[in-house]
Amino acid sequence: MPLNPSLDPSVDSLAELTAAVCTFAEQRDWDQFHNPKNLSMALIVEAAELVEHFQWLSRQESNKLNDEQHEAVSMEMADVLIYLVRMAERLDIDLLKAAQKKLEINNKKYPVEQAKGRSEKYTRYQTEQTEQNS
Amino acid sequence: MPLNPSLDPSVDSLAELTAAVCTFAEQRDWDQFHNPKNLSMALIVEAAELVEHFQWLSRQESNKLNDEQHEAVSMEMADVLIYLVRMAERLDIDLLKAAQKKLEINNKKYPVEQAKGRSEKYTRYQTEQTEQNS
Amino acid sequence: MPLNPSLDPSVDSLAELTAAVCTFAEQRDWDQFHNPKNLSMALIVEAAELVEHFQWLSRQESNKLNDEQHEAVSMEMADVLIYLVRMAERLDIDLLKAAQKKLEINNKKYPVEQAKGRSEKYTRYQTEQTEQNS
Amino acid sequence: MPLNPSLDPSVDSLAELTAAVCTFAEQRDWDQFHNPKNLSMALIVEAAELVEHFQWLSRQESNKLNDEQHEAVSMEMADVLIYLVRMAERLDIDLLKAAQKKLEINNKKYPVEQAKGRSEKYTRYQTEQTEQNS
Repeated sequence: MPLNPSLDPSVDSLAELTAAVCTFAEQRDWDQFHNPKNLSMALIVEAAELVEHFQWLSRQESNKLNDEQHEAVSMEMADVLIYLVRMAERLDIDLLKAAQKKLEINNKKYPVEQAKGRSEKYTRYQTEQTEQNS
Repeated sequence: MPLNPSLDPSVDSLAELTAAVCTFAEQRDWDQFHNPKNLSMALIVEAAELVEHFQWLSRQESNKLNDEQHEAVSMEMADVLIYLVRMAERLDIDLLKAAQKKLEINNKKYPVEQAKGRSEKYTRYQTEQTEQNS
Repeated sequence: MPLNPSLDPSVDSLAELTAAVCTFAEQRDWDQFHNPKNLSMALIVEAAELVEHFQWLSRQESNKLNDEQHEAVSMEMADVLIYLVRMAERLDIDLLKAAQKKLEINNKKYPVEQAKGRSEKYTRYQTEQTEQNS
Repeated sequence: MPLNPSLDPSVDSLAELTAAVCTFAEQRDWDQFHNPKNLSMALIVEAAELVEHFQWLSRQESNKLNDEQHEAVSMEMADVLIYLVRMAERLDIDLLKAAQKKLEINNKKYPVEQAKGRSEKYTRYQTEQTEQNS
């Protein structure tokens, strides 16, 4: 019998990852620390550890990480995902449904013909629209 | 026929979300902006928009969001996930595998008996260990 | 004669700190890395190291840091300031003038009688104003 | 007589900025929200608003901001400084002294001859040192 059954068998979905992360936290009695406020702080700390790997790299270098960098970056991204699913569980949010909804919203905010090849915020299109109409 | 077939049918897994996000970016010719360096910046900006919702709330208030706050928070978390899967695709990282690997690492760094009910970083346990052994 | 004359005598003002930070970077030939984009990333990484100290603390605990925590926090805040003055120098921005201007803007956005004892964003007051007028 | 005497006359030093920021917060009864934990969150939110301006820019573009971008960036940097001095006041930290101390520490961690033209973290030099000595 495995010592930590929750981490076995392998994680195949966000739901299974969520379950494994929650078991991990419960075993350590960490629910007391894991309120949404604190988890948002932990999440941004991990996001910054990800940024740290790229801060002095050129755009090109960031596309060609060596094996050591690639592994380190993948572990930071894992940390972000772990806190994200934990926070979603605490707040009873379905992350995949939320992401699909957000994509649909973005689809309207950034119409293909206006957004093509441009990196500005969508509010810029609205300003242009207003200027054209006035 | 749906106007945007990539967003239909519904997103049921991280793999499907990744595909939808990539199609969204390709349609807008945004690959040129989406290198890992820039995506790490976009990801932390979204993480900060999540933090912003909690900055003045007490721990208790962060556990009892009203409907408007809950919806806004779920959209910020969706943004983090969207950039996370996009970045993983750019770097050819399997997020679920990475997260499982990280959980196994954390399982060793934070042994249940030492970590129980404590919020310190694992390096603190190692210091204690060293002090006890010396 | 001191080995590093730029760090001696003591730093008494933001202008002197800026000069010392620039000399430090020039001696190491780091101008090539210190463009505003990269410096904004370095700054947020330091801000996150500051956040990390507080992520699991209660509000009350964050007011009563022990000596070790207090020293560590002061060094993280120093890092934020160092990147802030470096970035201001690169962009030819007078930080004190900018801060005074921002305070004047905030003074109008957050009128004392409306903002008193409330933590909401100023856009909330404008919504209220609109609702009252309609 | 000025309506807000604390903001007049002009801010000439970090000490005067600190005094003006504290008066601003006291007039609004915001001391209750301004504990170090919350202020660290507010600070990183502002740092992220700074990052947002640079996320899709190339290194070169970040060196040549137009007037509108330059003004917006200076206001975000002002926000970071405002929360930094407020937090320093709450924690009774002398920011200039702390920054000078940190520069002296960095001076030892990044010796000119080893750090010249390189962007790696100082721990990399120590690894090299160890490898050479072994």
